[in-house]
Amino acid sequence: MKIHQLQTHILHPILITDESMIAYLIHQRFHVSERFIGLLIKKDAIKLYLNNLFPTTLTDIEIIRFDDTEDPIKMLQHDLKSDILYVDKNMHAGFLIKLMKYAPLLNIEIDETCDKFRSIKDNYEIDLMRQASLINDQAMERVKLSIKEGMTELELATMIPSIFHSLGAQSTSFTPIVAFGQNTSDPHAMPGDTKLEKGMPIIVDMGCVYEGYCSDMTRSFFFQNNSLNDIYDVVKRANMAAIKMVKPGVPLKEIDHAARSVIKDAGYGEYFIHRTGHGIGQEVHEPYDVSSTSEHIAQVGMIFSIEPGIYIPNKGGIRIEDLVLVTESGCEVLNHYTKDLQILKDA
Amino acid sequence: MKIHQLQTHILHPILITDESMIAYLIHQRFHVSERFIGLLIKKDAIKLYLNNLFPTTLTDIEIIRFDDTEDPIKMLQHDLKSDILYVDKNMHAGFLIKLMKYAPLLNIEIDETCDKFRSIKDNYEIDLMRQASLINDQAMERVKLSIKEGMTELELATMIPSIFHSLGAQSTSFTPIVAFGQNTSDPHAMPGDTKLEKGMPIIVDMGCVYEGYCSDMTRSFFFQNNSLNDIYDVVKRANMAAIKMVKPGVPLKEIDHAARSVIKDAGYGEYFIHRTGHGIGQEVHEPYDVSSTSEHIAQVGMIFSIEPGIYIPNKGGIRIEDLVLVTESGCEVLNHYTKDLQILKDA
Repeated sequence: MKIHQLQTHILHPILITDESMIAYLIHQRFHVSERFIGLLIKKDAIKLYLNNLFPTTLTDIEIIRFDDTEDPIKMLQHDLKSDILYVDKNMHAGFLIKLMKYAPLLNIEIDETCDKFRSIKDNYEIDLMRQASLINDQAMERVKLSIKEGMTELELATMIPSIFHSLGAQSTSFTPIVAFGQNTSDPHAMPGDTKLEKGMPIIVDMGCVYEGYCSDMTRSFFFQNNSLNDIYDVVKRANMAAIKMVKPGVPLKEIDHAARSVIKDAGYGEYFIHRTGHGIGQEVHEPYDVSSTSEHIAQVGMIFSIEPGIYIPNKGGIRIEDLVLVTESGCEVLNHYTKDLQILKDA
Repeated sequence: MKIHQLQTHILHPILITDESMIAYLIHQRFHVSERFIGLLIKKDAIKLYLNNLFPTTLTDIEIIRFDDTEDPIKMLQHDLKSDILYVDKNMHAGFLIKLMKYAPLLNIEIDETCDKFRSIKDNYEIDLMRQASLINDQAMERVKLSIKEGMTELELATMIPSIFHSLGAQSTSFTPIVAFGQNTSDPHAMPGDTKLEKGMPIIVDMGCVYEGYCSDMTRSFFFQNNSLNDIYDVVKRANMAAIKMVKPGVPLKEIDHAARSVIKDAGYGEYFIHRTGHGIGQEVHEPYDVSSTSEHIAQVGMIFSIEPGIYIPNKGGIRIEDLVLVTESGCEVLNHYTKDLQILKDA
């Protein structure tokens, strides 16, 4: 289990309440929704505070059970012997403030150890993420072939889960972004009722989950003619310039800078309005960001996205995204789907 | 906007960081993921701290913009003039601890005003939730007709999104639960590769989103013969006993008690391992719980689930769930799909 490897690194007790981080550490996912779950990691003990509602066969960590009528925060507070506790950055205020009231002298800080540990993928994880990205490559081709004049974004988007399923993936890693026309100028556009017309740019940003690990890729197409002539090439060059920078020891902000410079030099700097990329693993967004303010350094085993884009309000946008794995000699691009400009004809 | 109605009720400044609560209050959803978003509600001002990345056409609240290189928590702290701040229970520790460091004398409490306000649906919301539940009723019949010997839980589950879509819903309100055989004894079973065989119980727990509002219903079936003879009837009686109790002024814990008593009296008390229900609206789980520890009272306009179940380890489980709306005279059941025992034959 990941948690036993992690336990050897910790200096102070850590309380993890984030479902996803708990799943990563103990290899079982509990969907507790608004209920409390807590994994307390100490040098000499590991305890999982788990509502009776959720069955488990875990045996090598201690399970502390409670039911809906009990107060797990009070139980946990009785277990804390130190004067400092690190908690995950996603712990909910409702639980945290309650803990602070029970233990007013406890010094609470935000844990970074787990994020750091999780950002480096082992070979088992890397194999699954390669596979998830291969499925994403195949799915992108099928999505492209499904594009027809007059269809809505939502019609195309709702095909994606079954395409992934037929290729062996368990689910999507996030609600797919399918945007047509001017909607492509919003990087987080949600699919709607806009119909595909001649000359529209198309953005498809999607990913699947394969055996618990995520993929994430974006491709931009044009329908019947290319209405954003120069921009596609700029984004593609930005994507490739950033990928070329990836190797162990390089600050992530320099990778961001490589993509950003290409776009800036082409005169579109103000239209690249997001970070260049994000870490990915069991969750589609994990530490660390590839951004201009990142303080982190590329290390062997990190997997993150490279996804520069240009978004021109009331006109449209282009984004090209791949996942990369940092290797000893540089990086391995996990996506193989073509980045060449594709102008689609109707079938 | 909901927020202007809410503003007239508040006594102290409230900071809302929860995406879903912000969407409810200002009628626009921002999917900010790990980035900060904050809606600061004061008696005399409303300010939305919003990353430049997210476009908005909102004009009747003040938008405070920042980018990925700025610190919105610091900006927000400069705007706080009072010595007390209420925050939502889902605020993330990473943001909260940072705010506490910037403002060590600020007294931070958990807000309950917004939950209370949101638990009462207006007529517009009620109409949409009726519609979402009608779609769920129709979808349940189609799901039932799709059930075939030898199919896996996952095969059935992955049909559900497109069934909802074809009936006019925008998406599922949660990952559908489809469980066969012994898997039905886990109330939160995730669909897997278990194949449907003769004699297996089947649980289908699903919901859709229609114009931003959720439905949620569970039905239990049997395939070819009924292997949990007495239990189905007990759960059905528990469901109906709880529904009969629902009217304005009744404590939610008494509604829970009504369902629990039926199951206890039949000798299955230890196998009803969860609360009787939960509030629902724009999110599938909203305040308030219908549980033995609830301190809340049924009020006209509340919508919640009634979903008693019996789960026998290594054998199987039954759950029957409807949504109910509290009305002046009692309640309106939003689901109309039959609760009669159905033993399915193969097509």
